[in-house]
Amino acid sequence: MRDAYHEELEGLTDKLVEMTRLVRSAISRATTALLDSDLAIAESVISRDEEVNAIFAQIETTIFDLMARQQPVAVDLRLVITALRMGTDLERMGDLAVHVAKVTRLRHPDSAIPPQMRSTIVEMGQIAEALVTKAGSCVASRDVESALELPQDDDAMDRLHRRLFRMLLSKDWQHGVEAAIDVTLIGRYYERYADHAVRVAQDVVYLVTGSRPS
Amino acid sequence: MRDAYHEELEGLTDKLVEMTRLVRSAISRATTALLDSDLAIAESVISRDEEVNAIFAQIETTIFDLMARQQPVAVDLRLVITALRMGTDLERMGDLAVHVAKVTRLRHPDSAIPPQMRSTIVEMGQIAEALVTKAGSCVASRDVESALELPQDDDAMDRLHRRLFRMLLSKDWQHGVEAAIDVTLIGRYYERYADHAVRVAQDVVYLVTGSRPS
Repeated sequence: MRDAYHEELEGLTDKLVEMTRLVRSAISRATTALLDSDLAIAESVISRDEEVNAIFAQIETTIFDLMARQQPVAVDLRLVITALRMGTDLERMGDLAVHVAKVTRLRHPDSAIPPQMRSTIVEMGQIAEALVTKAGSCVASRDVESALELPQDDDAMDRLHRRLFRMLLSKDWQHGVEAAIDVTLIGRYYERYADHAVRVAQDVVYLVTGSRPS
Repeated sequence: MRDAYHEELEGLTDKLVEMTRLVRSAISRATTALLDSDLAIAESVISRDEEVNAIFAQIETTIFDLMARQQPVAVDLRLVITALRMGTDLERMGDLAVHVAKVTRLRHPDSAIPPQMRSTIVEMGQIAEALVTKAGSCVASRDVESALELPQDDDAMDRLHRRLFRMLLSKDWQHGVEAAIDVTLIGRYYERYADHAVRVAQDVVYLVTGSRPS
């Protein structure tokens, strides 16, 4: 039988996994809203970010209680430290999905994305989702090998990000400065989202092994 | 006489203050390099970011040791938790100064900043420096009243950020898409730098009072 202490520690992991699910859903809906200029979906991304923030607040409270009442050591100690950091990264990922949704809302009923860039945005959305899904499984399973793959998986996002800039800077660009600014910021939001997913996975490596991936 | 435990705790504060000094210097030099297209200064910002990362690594090690050997409670516990978070924010501020320096390097010997935007960038640099300087004093003095002012101080950065977009989108913009992308990203880097400074100050409030500023 597990005691209350270990249940609280496992509860932390469950809450982090739940955060990965929520921010995966958020970036998925934000991408759909962006591509379809769908205001209702964009608004849902913006309003439901509260749920992500609420879970992170619970995680912070649990960690503070745990450290005040118990003396976690070794892997338990690393769990409370990394849970705080992973929670911070996941909360930020929720914010970045909100940023994407806000660009959609700002340009609605127009689209922020010129037709020839749609496929690149679709791919960025898919990779963002794949990264956070994998990061979530790593948090749940503490699978170090899988977690170590994330930086390489993220290379695909960096390639798409560079492709976005090439398209913006090509002579064929006919959408003006405003659209270029929107696409620049949106590209940055997806790239940052992916970076935070990589950091979550790196914290899993630290959690299990006690040392940081290089 | 203070014991080793309390010396280590105070050492954490000293290291955080040192980080604020380094990232203040970094954004100051990054702004100079950007405005003067000075490659040598830009390179110094990029290479010296290692110092910031090294101090943060020391902070992480100290925190981990402290929590494994001692059982910090109340304000001491809040210090180790917030030190970790403040260190993360400050490290990111160093990265953002590096990002500004890398735009300078990419465009050198040309300037990334059109003449009519120079004064806005000068002001953004000044506000970034003022914010991090104030955040650093708050960390050193644990001055809650001063820390509570940061969000309002940051409004000036948000106003400049909006001014930047207005200039980019005005009919007078004659510098094309590439310059618009550079300015968009640079504006975002300063705005994020300021946001992280605000978070550092908010952690001072939490450290001292035990509750988050709303």
